[in-house]
Amino acid sequence: MSKINKVVLAYSGGLDTSVIAKWLQETYDCEVVTFTADIGQGEEVEPARAKAEALGIKEIYIDDLREEFVRDFVFPMFRANTIYEGEYLLGTSIARPLIAKRLIEIANETGADAISHGATGKGNDQVRFELGAYALKPGIQVIAPWREWDLNSREKLMKYCETHEIPVDFSSSKKKSPYSMDANLLHISYEGGNLEDPWWEAEEDMWRWSVSPEQAPDEPTYITIEYEKGDPVALNGERQSPATLLENLNKIGGANGIGRLDIVENRYVGMKSRGCYETPGGTILLSAHRAIESLTLDREVAHLKDELMPRYAKIIYNGYWWSPERKMLQAAIDASQDVVNGEVRLKLYKGSVSVVGRRSEDSLFDERIATFEDDAGAYDQKDAEGFIKLNALRMRIAAGKGREYL
Amino acid sequence: MSKINKVVLAYSGGLDTSVIAKWLQETYDCEVVTFTADIGQGEEVEPARAKAEALGIKEIYIDDLREEFVRDFVFPMFRANTIYEGEYLLGTSIARPLIAKRLIEIANETGADAISHGATGKGNDQVRFELGAYALKPGIQVIAPWREWDLNSREKLMKYCETHEIPVDFSSSKKKSPYSMDANLLHISYEGGNLEDPWWEAEEDMWRWSVSPEQAPDEPTYITIEYEKGDPVALNGERQSPATLLENLNKIGGANGIGRLDIVENRYVGMKSRGCYETPGGTILLSAHRAIESLTLDREVAHLKDELMPRYAKIIYNGYWWSPERKMLQAAIDASQDVVNGEVRLKLYKGSVSVVGRRSEDSLFDERIATFEDDAGAYDQKDAEGFIKLNALRMRIAAGKGREYL
Amino acid sequence: MSKINKVVLAYSGGLDTSVIAKWLQETYDCEVVTFTADIGQGEEVEPARAKAEALGIKEIYIDDLREEFVRDFVFPMFRANTIYEGEYLLGTSIARPLIAKRLIEIANETGADAISHGATGKGNDQVRFELGAYALKPGIQVIAPWREWDLNSREKLMKYCETHEIPVDFSSSKKKSPYSMDANLLHISYEGGNLEDPWWEAEEDMWRWSVSPEQAPDEPTYITIEYEKGDPVALNGERQSPATLLENLNKIGGANGIGRLDIVENRYVGMKSRGCYETPGGTILLSAHRAIESLTLDREVAHLKDELMPRYAKIIYNGYWWSPERKMLQAAIDASQDVVNGEVRLKLYKGSVSVVGRRSEDSLFDERIATFEDDAGAYDQKDAEGFIKLNALRMRIAAGKGREYL
Amino acid sequence: MSKINKVVLAYSGGLDTSVIAKWLQETYDCEVVTFTADIGQGEEVEPARAKAEALGIKEIYIDDLREEFVRDFVFPMFRANTIYEGEYLLGTSIARPLIAKRLIEIANETGADAISHGATGKGNDQVRFELGAYALKPGIQVIAPWREWDLNSREKLMKYCETHEIPVDFSSSKKKSPYSMDANLLHISYEGGNLEDPWWEAEEDMWRWSVSPEQAPDEPTYITIEYEKGDPVALNGERQSPATLLENLNKIGGANGIGRLDIVENRYVGMKSRGCYETPGGTILLSAHRAIESLTLDREVAHLKDELMPRYAKIIYNGYWWSPERKMLQAAIDASQDVVNGEVRLKLYKGSVSVVGRRSEDSLFDERIATFEDDAGAYDQKDAEGFIKLNALRMRIAAGKGREYL
Repeated sequence: MSKINKVVLAYSGGLDTSVIAKWLQETYDCEVVTFTADIGQGEEVEPARAKAEALGIKEIYIDDLREEFVRDFVFPMFRANTIYEGEYLLGTSIARPLIAKRLIEIANETGADAISHGATGKGNDQVRFELGAYALKPGIQVIAPWREWDLNSREKLMKYCETHEIPVDFSSSKKKSPYSMDANLLHISYEGGNLEDPWWEAEEDMWRWSVSPEQAPDEPTYITIEYEKGDPVALNGERQSPATLLENLNKIGGANGIGRLDIVENRYVGMKSRGCYETPGGTILLSAHRAIESLTLDREVAHLKDELMPRYAKIIYNGYWWSPERKMLQAAIDASQDVVNGEVRLKLYKGSVSVVGRRSEDSLFDERIATFEDDAGAYDQKDAEGFIKLNALRMRIAAGKGREYL
Repeated sequence: MSKINKVVLAYSGGLDTSVIAKWLQETYDCEVVTFTADIGQGEEVEPARAKAEALGIKEIYIDDLREEFVRDFVFPMFRANTIYEGEYLLGTSIARPLIAKRLIEIANETGADAISHGATGKGNDQVRFELGAYALKPGIQVIAPWREWDLNSREKLMKYCETHEIPVDFSSSKKKSPYSMDANLLHISYEGGNLEDPWWEAEEDMWRWSVSPEQAPDEPTYITIEYEKGDPVALNGERQSPATLLENLNKIGGANGIGRLDIVENRYVGMKSRGCYETPGGTILLSAHRAIESLTLDREVAHLKDELMPRYAKIIYNGYWWSPERKMLQAAIDASQDVVNGEVRLKLYKGSVSVVGRRSEDSLFDERIATFEDDAGAYDQKDAEGFIKLNALRMRIAAGKGREYL
Repeated sequence: MSKINKVVLAYSGGLDTSVIAKWLQETYDCEVVTFTADIGQGEEVEPARAKAEALGIKEIYIDDLREEFVRDFVFPMFRANTIYEGEYLLGTSIARPLIAKRLIEIANETGADAISHGATGKGNDQVRFELGAYALKPGIQVIAPWREWDLNSREKLMKYCETHEIPVDFSSSKKKSPYSMDANLLHISYEGGNLEDPWWEAEEDMWRWSVSPEQAPDEPTYITIEYEKGDPVALNGERQSPATLLENLNKIGGANGIGRLDIVENRYVGMKSRGCYETPGGTILLSAHRAIESLTLDREVAHLKDELMPRYAKIIYNGYWWSPERKMLQAAIDASQDVVNGEVRLKLYKGSVSVVGRRSEDSLFDERIATFEDDAGAYDQKDAEGFIKLNALRMRIAAGKGREYL
Repeated sequence: MSKINKVVLAYSGGLDTSVIAKWLQETYDCEVVTFTADIGQGEEVEPARAKAEALGIKEIYIDDLREEFVRDFVFPMFRANTIYEGEYLLGTSIARPLIAKRLIEIANETGADAISHGATGKGNDQVRFELGAYALKPGIQVIAPWREWDLNSREKLMKYCETHEIPVDFSSSKKKSPYSMDANLLHISYEGGNLEDPWWEAEEDMWRWSVSPEQAPDEPTYITIEYEKGDPVALNGERQSPATLLENLNKIGGANGIGRLDIVENRYVGMKSRGCYETPGGTILLSAHRAIESLTLDREVAHLKDELMPRYAKIIYNGYWWSPERKMLQAAIDASQDVVNGEVRLKLYKGSVSVVGRRSEDSLFDERIATFEDDAGAYDQKDAEGFIKLNALRMRIAAGKGREYL
């Protein structure tokens, strides 16, 4: 065990990270700096200050990162229409690099030589925190208590709290859930408990951000989202900051039962896990962004983006946000978005999002050419013959030489 | 114009192809063989016989291709979770290669030297018919009247019917639609008319296969689909043929308002067009197949499939079903499906499909390892440290040499 | 035939394009502007002026585009290590978009409403010229005489010259070749003649830019190339302009028998063709660029580039340089090149190029870590165990459940 | 440390693995089974028997795996034209999965519960051995002494030999090399020593399998290779087994100075390393296979293969031969090779391989169409106009709406 002088801990104020704060002080005989961020998880962050003080912490960082989170992480990711394994909107994955970045910034400011976090040794989050940290500060040391200590059960943790007089507030509603949860402005997730049986249907009262489709209003809600350079900038005609816009979409989406997802996913560490997610605003934004792109992007650019997307999603899921390959792909994605401007109209109704209209000054939809009516010569149908004949040529030659394609 | 002796026409029995049948006889002074297929479009095909006879056709083919269509075209495509441009389930695209194949088979049987179809010179279907035909019979001649004749308006067509005493039945409900429509067991599509304004919302009574989500039942419907080697084989425990299963899913899906889609898509011939689609059964099958794969497929195989999918979709959309590259990709996809067995449980409700359970004898979900509880040593959390450190090494080296990733 | 007032012709000064100049005047009753470019083909361009004048041309453009060609087309392409079908360095393909651009610029300057070129209807060059022209000026008209006229044999052309008193100089050495040739600073190509039999070996005296390996010097030549941001900037320590550097590499490479290639390639128009190429400088640059990248690029960036490259090559080969998808890919490629700085040492000998050394201030080669000797703890070998175990986990789980990989 | 009863050791008979054999017996108090394979490394394997016996080994396996190696590993890999990072022919990588497979087969036969190998903790080979082992027998234990013991210098190893009376033969010429070497029928590799400076040119007497180009014959050697279904089956008209054919190509290639390579590569474990390789036969086979494919493969199939290849190469390099994703890709690759039949003629001369002819009954080269001469109507040049116009349409529409591509 190398000598640690000061460690920056990603501190939620909850039981686990409070134990970690104490355990770090005790085990490494080092100073602990706590860092608590508001990334839209829906809980007050300020109470973490008193808790940290009670643990004897002297350097306490509490930051509101909501705008940075949405502007610099969520929106760039949505420019790529990013989905992992066909379903998952990467709500957890996209928050981790921001936390990693702040941990390192604070380590630099406070002269800490290590960081620590409360992620377990089985999950993706440890990877995301640590890859980010190593990329941004290669000499940093990382302490991952869940991989080191023997407090591997709730009972042992409680015992530790008792012994060490850790004043954790056990009345928080979140802790009463039987599920392991994570939340930020993009989503809330549920894992563990009964979900470990993939055949078991999640019970209605597990979900926290959305009403069930059954309980959603009987009338659809129509909204309009305006895009500039691939990012949403206004909702129903009102210009809003990134975080505000996403927060509002979460509310509207959640009220309409939108954004629930129940999947089995493949973790980077090699196992399958079952997760349930609520991503109301993100689900709407994915549809809306695809719709505005459908009108404004060149076909080949759109197809290239679609082919690159799974790889880009995997990079983010696996924790490589702060990598040169992510930057390289982002350069390509961003280069395509200058023209992605305009408005999308959507209908939200009992769990479903439907695009019902899209318009743009940068539209490439050419009604003169696309029309089923007389196009006054805008398009010469005879061109199609040569187009088809030459596209068929390689197969005609091959078939002529006996190749069979049946 | 080369001399044509006999031409096989893809004949629907409707106005357009009836005119074409006459026009071909007149223009090319050739025999016309008609071919009418039931691919689940929901209209009787037998009436086409009398119509063809009235046009003086002597060789008339009327085939029920529904099982072949679903078994050999729809299902193989769904093994790849195929979607074009993030949205479209390729309902039209996947029917065309079957028609092309039958046209060529009939040409071979009847000694015809040409085929003909009623697709326009602006669309994708001409490409799909003709690429298929050329690949399967390179010396075939293709007559595409819409690219040749001057009957380019409804009035001219009507006039032609009158002059030539074409006994078309104008009372068919389909023809009264202001939209250009296409249907088969996988979907029904709408183009043209008001849809040519992408901002205009399709009116409720355009849709024919599904009720609106608003009108769907207030209670969800739960179904179970069973898979064998990547294909669905049973619905709610009852083994069904491919066409029957898809037909039943269409009914159940349509009754629950599922499968409506409104998009702007990029045609192969170079223009954007707006289309609306109803694909009730297909929408359910996409979710179900992804769900059973999520449990049974290896992670890297699943990711490889996701990266290949957009290209596979493009191949089908563009009309290259009968190509060596499609066969090559199909070989890879099919090689992955042996283990895709098991059951998926889904909830259908007012337009949305939710997977709520999945189970399989071939499941790779390992509850012993995935659990948040004590795993009795099935997974050694300490392994994660080395995993992360070596995955980070290239970035740590680079950062140590001054590379910055912010 | 639409009315043409003025047409800009890509004019080489040779027989074919002289005939075209006359034929355009005669057929379209229009003014012809000639454009002749020096892109390093190794022939004087100034003589084209007198020839054009003799044909009655009043607006004559003669440009030296060598630096622009190498700087803005060849070098950006080499940043991607571009090879078409595993072999071809795209010497012809990369020159066409520059010609297309100048044709359009001149059309704009002279108020011409059309462009014309001497490429045949079977080849790729027509596509490259015309796609570029349409992308840069969508309303431009294109006249491709080889697709229109009936002068489809050497005899008819000669007859036409005679009749029209076209003063073509038939003594040019290039014209005596039995091959169809094309040259620019990147390469010279040979097609047609005996090469149409792919089993036939090209005779020694076909090749013009390089000595045979057998005739190359018996002593190897060592050179050093310096790179900045992915582009070569100095040869043997001497800073040189792009065109000068490539010209010098052509000389050195040619003298050492380097850069000959004999392939069967797939044309965009659907046929296979056999071509022989000499690309002495380009062959050296491909090796050198890969070598400097091997030292300075991150692994995942390098691999991503390798996976994108075939698509990028195809885009260029097919004529889509002036397309949004090429720009998008270029953005990704260029984003990777900031760190591609340093020196490469190569050995040239009788047809082969061998990299024998590379060094860079931006090297990511870490001798402390890579060493077989004691690394003083720079790398902890124990990390490898966890790395392997977690990478194996998905397969161990699968094998444990009975999956077999043999 | 878990209890090991019997371990199968990949045993070369050299110093390192002899020490390992003893160390395993001593450290784990277990039986050791040795496995020595002839995979064409060019050294006798039978002498390993006496050495193993001297170490007290009772179960000794000595196998001639040359044919299996080339037939089931090298040839399938070459069907994909596999190159890692643009240069490396994967000579080491492709041998490891065969060794892993035999280790596991022997473990099954002898009832061993562990395997062991002599690969270090810094390299790729440990990964390749162990991923293979875990995939084929998930419960197997792996002992990697170099990651465990403290014999991390030559001196300590020697001391260990002395203490334990290990009768290693130090006179073997291979051991006198300052380089770390690995050889099999596909290649021989060199790492370490002076090569750890990437600017340093390897000295001539390092290379063992090939003469220098300078010392190669002054006359070129012409050879013909015949292919069936993508694999070479005959050399100069003489049918040969896979191993024999590759061995002969190694001799001919080596005699002509062919197949030397000097690169900096990216290891899977995260560092760059410098390696030199001699792959005479493989270098010839890569050219020859590409050549026969150029004549017989469809264009889109060829391009798809080219785009998949870097990923396939990475899978093999990283050690995932025994993975479901490799099998999936192999299915696609193999599906393309039925038509890859015919003959290639090559010229070998002082380090370079030139394809000079190729012919095939399955050739898709259509001289009637490709000809520069009159093609008697086989190809209608007018088709090109429509082909180009529709391919340009999306860009013409975009440019017409103000998009700029310069």
